[in-house]
Amino acid sequence: MRIERLAIIGVGLIGGSLALALRKAGVVGEIIGAGRSRDNLETAVARGIVDRYEFDPLVAARDADSVFIATPVETIIPLATALRETVKAGAVVTDGGSVKQAIAYTLGATFQGAPAAFVPGHPIAGTEKTGAAAAQADLFTDRRTVLTPTRETPTWAIERVAAMWQAAGSAVEIMEPARHDAVFAAISHLPHATAFTLVQAVAALERESGQPILKYAASGFADATRIASSDPALWRDIFAQNRDALLHALDAYEASLKQLRELIQAVDRSGLEHFFAEAKHTRDELGRK
Amino acid sequence: MRIERLAIIGVGLIGGSLALALRKAGVVGEIIGAGRSRDNLETAVARGIVDRYEFDPLVAARDADSVFIATPVETIIPLATALRETVKAGAVVTDGGSVKQAIAYTLGATFQGAPAAFVPGHPIAGTEKTGAAAAQADLFTDRRTVLTPTRETPTWAIERVAAMWQAAGSAVEIMEPARHDAVFAAISHLPHATAFTLVQAVAALERESGQPILKYAASGFADATRIASSDPALWRDIFAQNRDALLHALDAYEASLKQLRELIQAVDRSGLEHFFAEAKHTRDELGRK
Repeated sequence: MRIERLAIIGVGLIGGSLALALRKAGVVGEIIGAGRSRDNLETAVARGIVDRYEFDPLVAARDADSVFIATPVETIIPLATALRETVKAGAVVTDGGSVKQAIAYTLGATFQGAPAAFVPGHPIAGTEKTGAAAAQADLFTDRRTVLTPTRETPTWAIERVAAMWQAAGSAVEIMEPARHDAVFAAISHLPHATAFTLVQAVAALERESGQPILKYAASGFADATRIASSDPALWRDIFAQNRDALLHALDAYEASLKQLRELIQAVDRSGLEHFFAEAKHTRDELGRK
Repeated sequence: MRIERLAIIGVGLIGGSLALALRKAGVVGEIIGAGRSRDNLETAVARGIVDRYEFDPLVAARDADSVFIATPVETIIPLATALRETVKAGAVVTDGGSVKQAIAYTLGATFQGAPAAFVPGHPIAGTEKTGAAAAQADLFTDRRTVLTPTRETPTWAIERVAAMWQAAGSAVEIMEPARHDAVFAAISHLPHATAFTLVQAVAALERESGQPILKYAASGFADATRIASSDPALWRDIFAQNRDALLHALDAYEASLKQLRELIQAVDRSGLEHFFAEAKHTRDELGRK
């Protein structure tokens, strides 16, 4: 696997980290970045993430063999639709969006019969930090990348994108777009919803009491709410795109919360211990994986 | 501040870490541990946490100047009540329980006019780990310890316990017992409730789908649920003891969750972004403290 010329549209944490990982693996020639913030792009050049940059993504991608769209999820369909007309024949366009159904089916149809290919993807990695300054070469090491091709996606293009992520250190898995969105509604979008909510609730309790509460936070609260420092616009878009699967996950969460509230209200000691022990068992298993 | 003989009842993460911190500060003579698990007590001896141990807490505390009760919150009142009759005159008994109203008022009355004193306390530190093996000398460094004396608590005893925690690296703060329980219902017990619930909800979604979900967890889910690995019996007791304040905190949480659900349902993009931005602002401020 070698990419002579790679375009990264959106040189943030994800896009920048892919560039660093592929450089470290020695599998990429020139990397061209595209973005809107000159400061961020200059940071990317200074850190050796990209060789040069353009403000126009279509110009950045014009002569690329592979194009990675790492912009907020709402911008991916219009961007990829425009790229279909301007990238060279045989190029592969792929993305890193966290919600896949709309992207996979819309762009599957858009690219059908086109000289270039589109492969929908989602690298499962990230932190609450953003920007080229936060990019790191090992972000994808021992992580998974999920690809959600449709029946229109050419096999050669899936293989090329899979090889790129493997070169970046990630395992690659193929999944139906609908299943992807249900899985990540549960394991990623729901935890963000509950973390944002927890911070808002404690802030409301602090306002209500008129005395400080947040300053007594220990590491437990800090860990539990770390993802509430994530980018608001990014998560607004993810929640909007994955509304139905997220509401379904929220239903399950509210059912569990109702069960716990009833145990607390009744001071059901064995019920509480059982609830916590089940959760601990599940969480401890996760830690061993 | 010097403690010639210190008894630690319950040589786990908290009790063991206090012993290590005071040893490191060079302010303690002999440390006697008490507990039920021989294996754990042997670990404590092997790690230099205690000099020797007893299975009977009353025997361990008999000649101590200071006694620290670091056992589950439900056992503190009966233990301290028994110690009132057996510790030497001028000894100070203190505890590390996470819920303070019942302990402070019950034991305030019990120790009134006694030759020994009781000071209710709560060091704000901890991890999801347990046992003497997890103890560390710097657990309390730059943390807070809250003392919740009542009008019966002698000033000399408060000062002695405050000096002990300061020697262990902690700042010390005095708080009304009721306010303590409201603050920690919000900043500690509620986050545990939502973390246990999140794990239970995702496990339920996984069972419902019949396909793996938990294995796709990234660092965000791991951080958000780390405290769901906490000891079930410990948290059963805390929830039982702090029922009313916790239910009040849950009310605030459910109100915030309802607000978020409505924003998702309506795909209210500006409302979602505002909700997330408020939470991010609060969480980022916390990080800077």
